[in-house]
Amino acid sequence: MQERAEATRRFLVEAAAQLFEERGYAGTSISDISARSGRTSGAIYFHFTNKEKLALAVVEATLATWPALIARVRASQAPALEKLVSLSFTVARAFRDDVVVRAGSRLWMERKAIAAPVPGPFTAWIETVTQLLRDAEAEDELAAGVVPETAALAVVYAFFGLHTVSDALDGRARIEERLRELWEVLLMALRAAPDTPALLARAGAPAPAAGTPA
Amino acid sequence: MQERAEATRRFLVEAAAQLFEERGYAGTSISDISARSGRTSGAIYFHFTNKEKLALAVVEATLATWPALIARVRASQAPALEKLVSLSFTVARAFRDDVVVRAGSRLWMERKAIAAPVPGPFTAWIETVTQLLRDAEAEDELAAGVVPETAALAVVYAFFGLHTVSDALDGRARIEERLRELWEVLLMALRAAPDTPALLARAGAPAPAAGTPA
Repeated sequence: MQERAEATRRFLVEAAAQLFEERGYAGTSISDISARSGRTSGAIYFHFTNKEKLALAVVEATLATWPALIARVRASQAPALEKLVSLSFTVARAFRDDVVVRAGSRLWMERKAIAAPVPGPFTAWIETVTQLLRDAEAEDELAAGVVPETAALAVVYAFFGLHTVSDALDGRARIEERLRELWEVLLMALRAAPDTPALLARAGAPAPAAGTPA
Repeated sequence: MQERAEATRRFLVEAAAQLFEERGYAGTSISDISARSGRTSGAIYFHFTNKEKLALAVVEATLATWPALIARVRASQAPALEKLVSLSFTVARAFRDDVVVRAGSRLWMERKAIAAPVPGPFTAWIETVTQLLRDAEAEDELAAGVVPETAALAVVYAFFGLHTVSDALDGRARIEERLRELWEVLLMALRAAPDTPALLARAGAPAPAAGTPA
């Protein structure tokens, strides 16, 4: 029974995520979610008490997406900077393709309209990136003068700004190409060695757009 | 009479901005704005037709803040990279201190809840930064391999991400210190010459926080 309740919760979180992603928090009602999911409003209230709790469950499902991705990348044998770049592409694809992540991102943007505090992703990402940059430092891969803690902030700012700007300019259609271009600039600051195109290729970045200088 | 109508519009835009900044678009009504401004709802509707038009007027007032700041910075005799850094601090202070800019920024975040299209700032900022980096290139101040168009995107992503993250972590209290640290990283990628602390001081950045590596 416990397992079945978990499956129902997950099913409702995904149905709610579709609507929150399309219409936002204020534009979505429990009866919309009932219509989309084919469950009664009573069943939804049984699992989530109210719309706010359901929105928080979507945000928590988004935050819960990352630890497994991070663990998988960290377990690989690649150098730390390559792990960092590879992780960034995996996360960017999730923001583009995973409806729960997209909904969590929109709800976080609209967090001031939600009565309960909405947990944000930044502190955890800053820690993850700092740790990968410390590993890169230990591998002698960082340029002289790069401080992992400070550089991690710059990487996190640029990554989240990329999402905001890409969403506004083209609905994230060109997110992978833009992320590649961003790394070409950031790696000029971060890396001791200059073979950025080779690192980007190994980390799963798309090839440069035709006509773009490498 | 024309001048007086303009003054009244500006007064109402500022009163509305205070409320949009505190409560967001959905949380603010014309009668709230009437109470805050001491004008009747009828007078507000005479100038703006509806809440949506008033919100768009706040966003337009925000966007109208930048051209004069940009022109002033561009008219100075400083090298182009110093102009860019200086402009970024001026804009960051406006985001922290100017209620119209803060409200415009919040309304833009909430744009999907507003029926009319809300104009965004990114295309204009990308053009401004690209032009300053082209000037820096002409002054031989860019590192080999830096492409102004691509680097401008990285700068704009990082700058807007800085605002999002700073707002989430500490309500923008440490925005100037964080912006200084961001430039320390970005300038390692962009600059041909390595005297970043001197450039930052000339551009009006705050001194490094005590205990922070320069």
